[in-house]
This record gives sequence, structure tokens and C-alpha cells, in this order.
Amino acid sequence: MHFTQASINALDSRTRAHFINSLSGFKSANLIGTQDQQGNTNLAIVSSVVHLGANPPLVAMIMRPHTVPRHTFENIKQTGVYTINQVNQSIFKQAHQTSARYDKHESEFEHTGLTTEYLSGFTAPFVKESRLKYSVKLAEHQHLAINGTELLIGEIIDVYVDDNAVAEDGFIDLQALDTVAVTGLDSYHSTHKLARLPYAK
Amino acid sequence: MHFTQASINALDSRTRAHFINSLSGFKSANLIGTQDQQGNTNLAIVSSVVHLGANPPLVAMIMRPHTVPRHTFENIKQTGVYTINQVNQSIFKQAHQTSARYDKHESEFEHTGLTTEYLSGFTAPFVKESRLKYSVKLAEHQHLAINGTELLIGEIIDVYVDDNAVAEDGFIDLQALDTVAVTGLDSYHSTHKLARLPYAK
Repeated sequence: MHFTQASINALDSRTRAHFINSLSGFKSANLIGTQDQQGNTNLAIVSSVVHLGANPPLVAMIMRPHTVPRHTFENIKQTGVYTINQVNQSIFKQAHQTSARYDKHESEFEHTGLTTEYLSGFTAPFVKESRLKYSVKLAEHQHLAINGTELLIGEIIDVYVDDNAVAEDGFIDLQALDTVAVTGLDSYHSTHKLARLPYAK
Repeated sequence: MHFTQASINALDSRTRAHFINSLSGFKSANLIGTQDQQGNTNLAIVSSVVHLGANPPLVAMIMRPHTVPRHTFENIKQTGVYTINQVNQSIFKQAHQTSARYDKHESEFEHTGLTTEYLSGFTAPFVKESRLKYSVKLAEHQHLAINGTELLIGEIIDVYVDDNAVAEDGFIDLQALDTVAVTGLDSYHSTHKLARLPYAK
């Protein structure tokens, strides 16, 4: 089937959102942990965390336009710190629930039954139930004028992962950690290993 | 296990690359089709395509630093057009092979046995064996000085997908298309549906 630019434009906005969100492929599923300067914690699921570089270790994240209150984004801008917590099969329904609209003083942690965890003196809260998580310092923020989204680039600081999950060559077996993948706006998947392929020559 | 910033820095570069590339979670697997102004075709697998917006329909992609010849990046900058082709289980080994270093006049299409396909008069070649693919016009390019990577933002034009893959609400079943996901630098996965969850309230 061929969908032209015009036919895509003609879709109602919800259908177009489902359709276009399917195009990029499988997405990561991460919970972003923050708190504001008063200590109110916040948790939000995002599917836009993407690897930027290994040296220095950097991750990028796209956040939706700041045309409505965005507590996670505001906390990151104000405090400069956040945690990234991979979502696994045991918690994906609770993680999805963090995308509901809560007031600033309501914590998604409480409303979804996920547990805050503070590690190594880092100010932003981790998700105790996550099996691979890391602290991040905001390194760069860019407002993408092309569509009003926000690009946040963070430097990875400390990494916490289940014992026995890291192979000798540094590879981490996300499937053994039951990490989930996302498609579209709302579909969650577990995975099945096909192969690790050698460096191509 | 706790990996401090210092212990991560102390890893050799290959181990650190495997480790840090595992942190963002599951990644998309797409083949980027381009050709230069002389008609030499090029194909490259990337795991960095990420959804940017549905209206207008935009995708972002991170490309590695242009400190060595990068034919895909150069073709996109010169011609302004490319195709994005989701990688499926039948072709993931061939797709991986596109990451080997080929000369400018060698086409990854020929070397990997993937087939060029030209659709609707669009200049850049599609991958015939891909089941969900779309034409893209370069909308914005940013050099990310923080680590020398290149951020390319493209506008989605025409979409081509297998019949019966698009649900009424616009959702595309990537699993039914056998689209694969990536972890780390070299690990490929098929998926298993857990659930589509309703809009959170």
C-alpha cells in the first residue's frame, strides 16, 4: 500500500499520530526520574532516549513541546540532573500509567506504585524496580524550532545493573533483564534474540 | 553492580562502546538508501532513527562523526533526499553487512544482495525487500559540537507498507512485518507482543 503525503495529511490527528509513530521502528522504553527544588519527585515514561556517544558517554532524549506544563522537562532544566531507568516486563503497565496527567505535587511514583531509590548521593530518584538505570547530568538543551520539541543531551555518570548482566566484552543482555521495547504510542513488546553479528568487513 | 564514571572511563574503548550502547535500551533497525549526483547508490544500516513529530511528520537520525568518509551523510547533504527502510528478519544479516567499509563506487546493494527499488519518481533508492519504507526530504541538519555527531531531521513524504499491516486507528503492526530491534552495537532481536495499553488517565 502506498500512502502519499496528501493522504497522510488528511488523516485525523489521532490516526496520523499512531501511523507516524510506527514508522521509526522499535523504540526504547525508559522512565525518567526527577525532582524539583522542593523535593517533589516526578516520573515519566519516554520512548525517545537514543544513544549519542560512548566517549564521553552521552544520551539524547526528545521531549514533547513545552506548550503545556511538563514537570520532567522543567525539573531537568532547574536541577540539571535526572535518572534514566529501563522499563522491564514486571513494571511496564505501571510505567505506562506515568503518562497520565498528574498535578505538580502528585508523584507518579505514589500513583503507580513504583518505588523511589536514592543512590550514591545523587539528587534525582531512581526506580527501585528497574534493573538497569543510570544517573545523568544535563549537558546541553536545544529547543528544536522545527516543531517545538526539546532535545536534551545528558552525560551518563553512574550505572547500576543487576549482577551477571554485563558480558566480558561490555555488552549488556537487555533481554535477560526483561527490558521491553515500544512501537507506536502504546504497544509494548518483549524480545527474542536472533543473533549477535560480528563486526562487518 | 555499580559502575562509577571513573570505572567506565577506565574501560578500553571497544568494551566501553559495547557497554554504553546497551544503556539507551532497544533501538530501531533501518537501512538508509541514498545515491550521489552521479547515480552511485549507497545503503547503510543505522540504529538511531527516532520519531520527532507527527504533524508535520518528522524523523530524526544521529550519524557518527564525519571525521572519516561517510557516503550516506554526504549523499544526503548533496541531494537532500533519502529513504528509510525498516529491517526485517529475512534481511537483517545482509543489512548488518552494509556497515562494512566499502569504497564510494561500490554499492552496498550489490555487495549484500539487497535490491534497489525506485518508487513514484523519487531519486533515492528504496530496498525492495523491506516491508515498511518511506521517502524523506532533509529538513534540517545540525552538527552536534558536543561530540561531533550529526543530527539530521527529515520530513516524511510517501510511505509504502505491506497490505493489511495498518490498523484502522493508524497503528502499524511492526511485529507482523517481522521488523527487528537492535541492542548494543550488534545484537538483533525479534519481538513478542505484550499489550497495547489505553491512553493513561
